[in-house]
Amino acid sequence: MTEKTAITPPTHTAPPAKFSHGVKKGNILQVAGQVGFLPAVEGQAPTPAGPTLREQTLQTFANVKAVLEAGGARWDDVMMMRVYLTDVAHFAEMNEIYNEYFASELKEAPAARTTVYVGLPAGLLIEIDALAVLG
Amino acid sequence: MTEKTAITPPTHTAPPAKFSHGVKKGNILQVAGQVGFLPAVEGQAPTPAGPTLREQTLQTFANVKAVLEAGGARWDDVMMMRVYLTDVAHFAEMNEIYNEYFASELKEAPAARTTVYVGLPAGLLIEIDALAVLG
Amino acid sequence: MTEKTAITPPTHTAPPAKFSHGVKKGNILQVAGQVGFLPAVEGQAPTPAGPTLREQTLQTFANVKAVLEAGGARWDDVMMMRVYLTDVAHFAEMNEIYNEYFASELKEAPAARTTVYVGLPAGLLIEIDALAVLG
Repeated sequence: MTEKTAITPPTHTAPPAKFSHGVKKGNILQVAGQVGFLPAVEGQAPTPAGPTLREQTLQTFANVKAVLEAGGARWDDVMMMRVYLTDVAHFAEMNEIYNEYFASELKEAPAARTTVYVGLPAGLLIEIDALAVLG
Repeated sequence: MTEKTAITPPTHTAPPAKFSHGVKKGNILQVAGQVGFLPAVEGQAPTPAGPTLREQTLQTFANVKAVLEAGGARWDDVMMMRVYLTDVAHFAEMNEIYNEYFASELKEAPAARTTVYVGLPAGLLIEIDALAVLG
Repeated sequence: MTEKTAITPPTHTAPPAKFSHGVKKGNILQVAGQVGFLPAVEGQAPTPAGPTLREQTLQTFANVKAVLEAGGARWDDVMMMRVYLTDVAHFAEMNEIYNEYFASELKEAPAARTTVYVGLPAGLLIEIDALAVLG
């Protein structure tokens, strides 16, 4: 019997429903969909890092990373990232930010990725989730 | 060599194409996207449980659970749920139904979750799939 | 320590950002979102196989298969396929093509599947990614 454990980084609010920001069981770690909210402040509603794609993307990366690290994983363990954007016109800029960010964060092969364009709550431009396999 | 097996609960119609409602291989169980269709009746087209988000969400949970159980898994084994809604305005109500439902269904850490807003076939308000790791 | 390796089939361009067309670690192989681009020609921009759903779907299957095979996997190892379409009206035709294609490609249980309707870059009608567990 392998135990499933919830991962809640200190930077995160309690999830707004009965789900976990991340879960780990055996060598599998799943990060829930993260958005560009700043670290939680008690008594305050979640606040996006800013209105721009750059601000939100970097904060979303920080939030995914916080879950990975709280679960004992690194970016290098990530197998798949799902990137949800709201606007096809954001693809090139997101890739630019993506490349800049991962240039220093990765030593091993980059994760696979799927990018699709969906609806997100008002004000949010990007959401990312990640599946990691620990080595 | 680990065998991959298809999971078809007795409540489900044969899939409308060459896919499985669920598959299991080793300790991984993947549930295909489920919607709020009532248990299959031979000779009848699939029918949603009702027009409301509540009816469809509860039926969708029942359909995911039927696949999990037919594969020897429980909600507690689920690592990730992907919730597809058609309307951002449904998020709060879906969370309410989600919390009510899982209050009694879960003993271990809740699954991670990603919710995005997409198009679905006419009349359907929610679709959910799930990745489980058996212990 | 299990190594994560990137998979780049000879038919594929280098990814347009720091992601991999596929990654493999232990017995898990993840194929990134594939679209209906023809095999890469150096110095040319990626070109869809054609404007029709049929052309793009068959080319997308070929591209997913190329990643699977370059990673030592087969269609039979695939547990989950995510099919992203841009138009609900394409569902029936996609299923027809899906069934024709997999009639000869599968010996074991077909993968689970989720189909949702999203935005994709202009001219693209379908995107597919796949999670495989090797046996």
